[in-house]
Amino acid sequence: MSTANLIKTSSRFKIPFGGDYNPEQWPEEIWEEDMRLFKLAKIDCVTLNVFSWAALQPDEETYDFEKLDRIMDMAERNGLHVILATSTAAHPAWMARKYPEVLRVNFSGMRRKFGDRHNSCPNSPVYRKYSKALAGKLAERYGHYHNLIAWHINNEYGGECYCENCERAFRVWLKEKYGTIEKLNQVWNTGFWGHTFYDWEEIVAPNLLSEHFEENRTTFQGISLDYRRFFSDSLLENYRAEYEAVKEITPDIPVTTNLMGFYKPLDYQKWAKYMDFVSWDNYPNVDTPPWGSAMCHDLMRGLKGGQPFVLMEQTPSVCNWLPYNALKRPGVMRLQSYQAVAHGADGVLFFQMRRSIGACEKYHGAVIDHGGNENTRVFREVQALGQELAALGGETLGTRVSARAAIVVDWDNWWALEYSAGPSTDLKYLDEVGRYYQAFYELNIPVDFISVEDKPDNYDVVILPLLYMVKDGYGQILKDYVEKGGCLVTTFFSGIVDEHDLVVTGGYPGRLKDIFGIWVEESDALPPGVKNGFTWNGKHYPAELLCDIMHMEGAQARAEYESDFYAGTPAIACNRLGDGRAWYVGTRSSEEFYRDFVRELTGDAGIEGVWDSIKDVEVTQRRSRESWYLFFLNHNKESAEICMKAEGESLLDGKAYKAGDRVWLEGNGVMLYRVKMERN
Amino acid sequence: MSTANLIKTSSRFKIPFGGDYNPEQWPEEIWEEDMRLFKLAKIDCVTLNVFSWAALQPDEETYDFEKLDRIMDMAERNGLHVILATSTAAHPAWMARKYPEVLRVNFSGMRRKFGDRHNSCPNSPVYRKYSKALAGKLAERYGHYHNLIAWHINNEYGGECYCENCERAFRVWLKEKYGTIEKLNQVWNTGFWGHTFYDWEEIVAPNLLSEHFEENRTTFQGISLDYRRFFSDSLLENYRAEYEAVKEITPDIPVTTNLMGFYKPLDYQKWAKYMDFVSWDNYPNVDTPPWGSAMCHDLMRGLKGGQPFVLMEQTPSVCNWLPYNALKRPGVMRLQSYQAVAHGADGVLFFQMRRSIGACEKYHGAVIDHGGNENTRVFREVQALGQELAALGGETLGTRVSARAAIVVDWDNWWALEYSAGPSTDLKYLDEVGRYYQAFYELNIPVDFISVEDKPDNYDVVILPLLYMVKDGYGQILKDYVEKGGCLVTTFFSGIVDEHDLVVTGGYPGRLKDIFGIWVEESDALPPGVKNGFTWNGKHYPAELLCDIMHMEGAQARAEYESDFYAGTPAIACNRLGDGRAWYVGTRSSEEFYRDFVRELTGDAGIEGVWDSIKDVEVTQRRSRESWYLFFLNHNKESAEICMKAEGESLLDGKAYKAGDRVWLEGNGVMLYRVKMERN
Amino acid sequence: MSTANLIKTSSRFKIPFGGDYNPEQWPEEIWEEDMRLFKLAKIDCVTLNVFSWAALQPDEETYDFEKLDRIMDMAERNGLHVILATSTAAHPAWMARKYPEVLRVNFSGMRRKFGDRHNSCPNSPVYRKYSKALAGKLAERYGHYHNLIAWHINNEYGGECYCENCERAFRVWLKEKYGTIEKLNQVWNTGFWGHTFYDWEEIVAPNLLSEHFEENRTTFQGISLDYRRFFSDSLLENYRAEYEAVKEITPDIPVTTNLMGFYKPLDYQKWAKYMDFVSWDNYPNVDTPPWGSAMCHDLMRGLKGGQPFVLMEQTPSVCNWLPYNALKRPGVMRLQSYQAVAHGADGVLFFQMRRSIGACEKYHGAVIDHGGNENTRVFREVQALGQELAALGGETLGTRVSARAAIVVDWDNWWALEYSAGPSTDLKYLDEVGRYYQAFYELNIPVDFISVEDKPDNYDVVILPLLYMVKDGYGQILKDYVEKGGCLVTTFFSGIVDEHDLVVTGGYPGRLKDIFGIWVEESDALPPGVKNGFTWNGKHYPAELLCDIMHMEGAQARAEYESDFYAGTPAIACNRLGDGRAWYVGTRSSEEFYRDFVRELTGDAGIEGVWDSIKDVEVTQRRSRESWYLFFLNHNKESAEICMKAEGESLLDGKAYKAGDRVWLEGNGVMLYRVKMERN
Repeated sequence: MSTANLIKTSSRFKIPFGGDYNPEQWPEEIWEEDMRLFKLAKIDCVTLNVFSWAALQPDEETYDFEKLDRIMDMAERNGLHVILATSTAAHPAWMARKYPEVLRVNFSGMRRKFGDRHNSCPNSPVYRKYSKALAGKLAERYGHYHNLIAWHINNEYGGECYCENCERAFRVWLKEKYGTIEKLNQVWNTGFWGHTFYDWEEIVAPNLLSEHFEENRTTFQGISLDYRRFFSDSLLENYRAEYEAVKEITPDIPVTTNLMGFYKPLDYQKWAKYMDFVSWDNYPNVDTPPWGSAMCHDLMRGLKGGQPFVLMEQTPSVCNWLPYNALKRPGVMRLQSYQAVAHGADGVLFFQMRRSIGACEKYHGAVIDHGGNENTRVFREVQALGQELAALGGETLGTRVSARAAIVVDWDNWWALEYSAGPSTDLKYLDEVGRYYQAFYELNIPVDFISVEDKPDNYDVVILPLLYMVKDGYGQILKDYVEKGGCLVTTFFSGIVDEHDLVVTGGYPGRLKDIFGIWVEESDALPPGVKNGFTWNGKHYPAELLCDIMHMEGAQARAEYESDFYAGTPAIACNRLGDGRAWYVGTRSSEEFYRDFVRELTGDAGIEGVWDSIKDVEVTQRRSRESWYLFFLNHNKESAEICMKAEGESLLDGKAYKAGDRVWLEGNGVMLYRVKMERN
Repeated sequence: MSTANLIKTSSRFKIPFGGDYNPEQWPEEIWEEDMRLFKLAKIDCVTLNVFSWAALQPDEETYDFEKLDRIMDMAERNGLHVILATSTAAHPAWMARKYPEVLRVNFSGMRRKFGDRHNSCPNSPVYRKYSKALAGKLAERYGHYHNLIAWHINNEYGGECYCENCERAFRVWLKEKYGTIEKLNQVWNTGFWGHTFYDWEEIVAPNLLSEHFEENRTTFQGISLDYRRFFSDSLLENYRAEYEAVKEITPDIPVTTNLMGFYKPLDYQKWAKYMDFVSWDNYPNVDTPPWGSAMCHDLMRGLKGGQPFVLMEQTPSVCNWLPYNALKRPGVMRLQSYQAVAHGADGVLFFQMRRSIGACEKYHGAVIDHGGNENTRVFREVQALGQELAALGGETLGTRVSARAAIVVDWDNWWALEYSAGPSTDLKYLDEVGRYYQAFYELNIPVDFISVEDKPDNYDVVILPLLYMVKDGYGQILKDYVEKGGCLVTTFFSGIVDEHDLVVTGGYPGRLKDIFGIWVEESDALPPGVKNGFTWNGKHYPAELLCDIMHMEGAQARAEYESDFYAGTPAIACNRLGDGRAWYVGTRSSEEFYRDFVRELTGDAGIEGVWDSIKDVEVTQRRSRESWYLFFLNHNKESAEICMKAEGESLLDGKAYKAGDRVWLEGNGVMLYRVKMERN
Repeated sequence: MSTANLIKTSSRFKIPFGGDYNPEQWPEEIWEEDMRLFKLAKIDCVTLNVFSWAALQPDEETYDFEKLDRIMDMAERNGLHVILATSTAAHPAWMARKYPEVLRVNFSGMRRKFGDRHNSCPNSPVYRKYSKALAGKLAERYGHYHNLIAWHINNEYGGECYCENCERAFRVWLKEKYGTIEKLNQVWNTGFWGHTFYDWEEIVAPNLLSEHFEENRTTFQGISLDYRRFFSDSLLENYRAEYEAVKEITPDIPVTTNLMGFYKPLDYQKWAKYMDFVSWDNYPNVDTPPWGSAMCHDLMRGLKGGQPFVLMEQTPSVCNWLPYNALKRPGVMRLQSYQAVAHGADGVLFFQMRRSIGACEKYHGAVIDHGGNENTRVFREVQALGQELAALGGETLGTRVSARAAIVVDWDNWWALEYSAGPSTDLKYLDEVGRYYQAFYELNIPVDFISVEDKPDNYDVVILPLLYMVKDGYGQILKDYVEKGGCLVTTFFSGIVDEHDLVVTGGYPGRLKDIFGIWVEESDALPPGVKNGFTWNGKHYPAELLCDIMHMEGAQARAEYESDFYAGTPAIACNRLGDGRAWYVGTRSSEEFYRDFVRELTGDAGIEGVWDSIKDVEVTQRRSRESWYLFFLNHNKESAEICMKAEGESLLDGKAYKAGDRVWLEGNGVMLYRVKMERN
């Protein structure tokens, strides 16, 4: 089942366009005006019922679907496709009062009171019972609507809890995982500081009252790491319970929940297995570079092996929870919408349709402003995009991005790495992932994000940024990959621990030692502002953050440190193994280095960018069996010149070009260019 | 009843001079030395009994007034006027132990233990009972003293509590305000995030355990706003209970409590209604500009319609709770004392008479230092001022400051504005209020602070800085004001919400839209360091913080943005309405702009400063029926030249001048110049 | 009993070398490899059993010493001396579950759960019972081992607790100290803010829920100060209970616990009375200057009147809990080891022998790395040092550092000073102590740290940096000292309070007023960046932080402020009293000033450095009856030239020199030079 199903009830296929719509928060007299405006803007898809639990279930015994019935009917009447949410991301006040167990306990150990959202303990039996029940009732009542195109379970799952129900569930989770308390003591290395457990009941949740002294600083990394896994699983169980409840009744309606890009608390690679399609919410900050959003889109696309995803939320203009709510400049909302599509999205949705008048999101951007009419710049831009997408139709739906390079991302590794006490507090996983991604991005080379469960064999170049944790068996997979001709790259502070965050003895990089043909004896952390350097291919680059001091055990030194007592020792090493090569980059360097390095790696592998680099113009490609779809996204304020390489059609304005034609793409402009493949 | 009563028992009228005196914290043998020193310094008024509850009531059943009797007798014997405090700002330790309910629960949700001051839950029945009882007993016992000139209830009311008694009281307060739970749900917009309440008991206090994620960041502004109102009211009820207790017995003794200038938690405009006169504590920081203190004095004067107030506390020298306790330079204490008088004070009092030897204020300034004698610079300056005030007598008492311009300040607006999630975290109410105030100050133009309940009709120019919230009916009042010829000014992010913090739909500035003749479509927040600009009256000014993008709907553009996509659209608009004009300033600009702008507004209205601007010399005026009193306050270290404009007398040195005479006013110097009015 | 006993079982005397060794955390098959590596590195002393409580006592009824038996036997078999720890620095998980009272309550008032270390409430009867019992059992079982050379009680005592058991114990402690509640009210000055206690039960622990509003900010300094004393005493009682338990059985084995230099929470001067010898853990930060470590060594040496101490822990390379784990450069570990010896250490030990593979110290430096072999730079450096120390033998053991100058340090003063509300938040005790220490250090003049209980008479120059608190009788001792010819120096903000933090009235510096012959009338706090200045001996210096404004009452002004309203008044005063002199330095100045000032003071007293100053080369001296031992420590990266002054032998390389010989000491190099004394 894929997102192509999303629009199955449409007369013809097209990109769903619309977003979160909360008519239940408004007087009904305004609904018809909404319908008029939606039509003006070619909005054909709404997400309903995101935060209505208290309205749908006014007390423990009673359900009241009357208003939702009217809303669903209105949607049907007006030809709106519906993504129906289950409303379980905020429990009703009566439930908090009657069953305080549904309330979370925070990192400081305090039981919360009613308020906020994402406020339910996932291990509360009461919450589990009633969230699942609500999902089932919604499916029973609305499953037959022909315009119901997807289920949206809960909303932006996240947060944390450290209550007694969680502790109990944690012990069960641990027992299932480790079987015996002896095994648990071993993998947590409890002998250190005499933390040996003799009874499962002695185990408590790791927070500020137990093992933690700061959010990411813990005295027992193993315990904290397992709690992260457990908690991601706990929320996943909530999701799965609702998933099953709706699937039982509507087996053909696809189910999703909206993810949030690189959201650290949840192991989305594990979650995606239980999602029919991936959807996510894109809220770049004012200073997020375009490659930052692109990286998230690519992560999302990779969660289900390249299958198209849905942009479930973005703001039409301002994002009110940022410190400074800069307006999206003219054209930027359209540009960002197409950027999603360019990276694999098959749906473009907003939060929110109508700007609320009270509570904490009343200054968040919306299609319909507080003014309440169509006479705003924002509405006009939405409307223009709606018309454009309607004209575009289903042309790009289901097409794929094809990449020959991959970056490996692993949530367990992320968690473990950033719990590490040493060697540097500035070691941040996404920094290193981002450095490599940015290099590919700037070279217009498609790259996939894969997990450590994905086979690397489909790729010519595979990057393992900061792969601190190497799980059982993964070393062998990587070795096989290289021996068969792959190009593998890893970085400083990689290969150190196993899946329990226990150091693999025998010399770093542990389970990767043979592949990279080196032994890292020491790692020197450089405080901010302190630099070493190296020369590679005749060019000088800085060395920062961490300098691994290594011995060649088969590999060849390719660059050497230029100063300090380890001057002259290797900074970069390359090991030939079987038919492939394994690069170890022992230090952090500059953006320029990563770009030059990736250019060499991909060059050696015969990988080319989908287009030459044009400053701040992003170019991506999606493919169907018949066509290439080139997306030109001009992130400059100024226009940029593009020289066409093949005959094709610019789909958004209907113009045809031949190879050699020159096109000026305006500032913030987008060109979607179709080139028909020649069939054999 | 006014502060003129304060000195009714004096042989002749004069400014009360003295301050907080705590003999009960000292061995009695030192009391007579105090009396000697007070006489030396012409101290004639002491505030007694500020923190003596534990001494007066050693247990629940017992009261012991013996020592206070001796203190009161000593004061009477020594001709000291007494402002008698009720001692309820810190409960006794035994009460905290016996009735933990008197202890507050903090913003994190933790019940406090005994300690600190301002530590009583205002909604504790036990605290209410015993604080009121003590006030009554004090009135019974000391009401007959002829030298008792005022009651001082509690001390610097403030702080917060989130306990169960508060929650219960909050629900009662809400029920009284809203009547039905449906109305409550509507004004809090609880539909958003499904927070619908079905029972009053479901409502909890908004703090870090419920709706807040930071002090000023809440998910439901309506709830948090009402809690602020409720809590200000809760403390006010404490005050009123004590007020009634003493009034019942001593109806003729005026009652006050010491306020703290722009103290955000308490709605002083509401409080002032229940105060016989206003008194406040002035503790400028080392880097508080002179206009900063002046602004507070003017706020305090405005609380009771211009009636003189009392400077209840200031430090003779250092303020020990500041990070760096700089000494007040020679002359500065005198200068600041007269600044208070210049803005309407009829009393000049210090904290504290004798420097305590233990606990957290032992390094706070005092008239009598730890050295214990009169041979200090600080004592000599106090003594000189005491002698000067004694010589001055009652000359200025009861005289009024007369202003033709007003700035509207509203606590509800302050609270709501700074709870707002968007458009900029740098939006701070007092910043904008201060910009306008400073402009008036530098032009020596008197300005009153008025509330939204005060009629604007008495003023030729009325400024509404950041009037984000426009309450029911206030729009009409402002419209009438302009139509009758008033000059009204407001700023960006004004007119957005009603009194419940619900956005007024139909376009910003909502209820002010007709008055200003504009529609604000969008507001662009500029991060720190980013600027736009505009030209006004041929001069260039910066635009910062927020840029409203507006359409003229009757108003005339008076300045236009110079850059970004909204370049050329109006930054400042002026609307002619009836006989008046309404100015909308759509962005933050520089101090220079505010000065130039206020100069134009006042010039158009025919308002002149009481004196020409002299750099760092402040000039104010108080008036009696017979005379003008001009205060020249030289905030420079160097002396400044003043050219007299009219015949008059310099009251502090007895010199007479004629028009055209030139006077050199020394650095930090003060001249109080009386000009007799010519009587018709 | 002294540390000389530490090696009594050795065939010949030498500096113990080794450190913390945790074989119980490793599989036994690795033990023999450890033994091989220890021998390679000449490691002859291990600290065992630091964190094994949970292993030794698996439940309340059971003890299991089987593995420790094997470890002790292995140590004996391999000729390793053992320092045996009692394992009580982290309680077992079962104890936390069964007796939650053993868990601490934190500064925010939250009861902790199981986790971390230093986690036991010292006033928990359960903890007291079982920690003492374990110590006794260890003594019974292992007291007979001939290679057992010392007991190591607990580990790095520290932290805080505010639980009900602590509160109860605090009340008992107070009753013992003050006798009556009236006395308590007096010394805490509870009259201020009406905190009068009528019953001991009303007293609660001072933390964020009672008197504190920040860690070091309290409303009642007296309460907070007594809680610090009480809590240091509480942990000391834990220590003493274990001390007694082992002494009862092994009266001849010396007992210690490892201290942490200038560790504020514990009054080590009081603790040292109950320690047979002092040991401490030295973890300089990357940017700790060499004098910073030297200062700690000298403090430790001073705790027991100059008796040699043991360097119980240092890292062979990285310190993993620092933000940036820079490697110790080649030679630095050796340099720092000899620096300890140079200041009086008779033992050189590391944390840790083998790098653990799990939990929060797995990236801390170790003699044996995760690689597990001897082929690392770090191991080779340890090995070289081990061989060097073995060759050196007992030469320096028991020798003494001899100083004629002393700096007085007092924990009560430290606590009280940094609780002070005013005059400047930048007043930090160690800053001022460090300024003076650094001056002595740079002049190579030995200096002792003494307490206020130590007689100053043995010293020609005594410095009292920031001696804010002067306890009963100490003023007289100091006066006698000066009158008999001593040179006494104190600084601004000294002599202010008595031992209860109550200001001594009558003028500052209170109890020191007569000695220094001045009266400090005011103190002006300068914010960062603001400076005054003065000229002393013809040279200009800055005045910062605080400027005391003083009157000469017998003293002579020796330098005067150059600006502000107190320009021309004394900044430095010197009072001749009897045969001595008392200097009062009324402000903070530059490093240069302190060096020049100390040079003059010591010059006047005829004190010379043990060597001329050579930039970044530290020179110290230890003496036996027969020889001087000069330690030259080159803290430069570059080599430095030393011209020998007397005939002697360089002990580490066996070379002999004559007076006038020139030696180049390499970067980070050490020379230990013995000069035989001529005997009369």
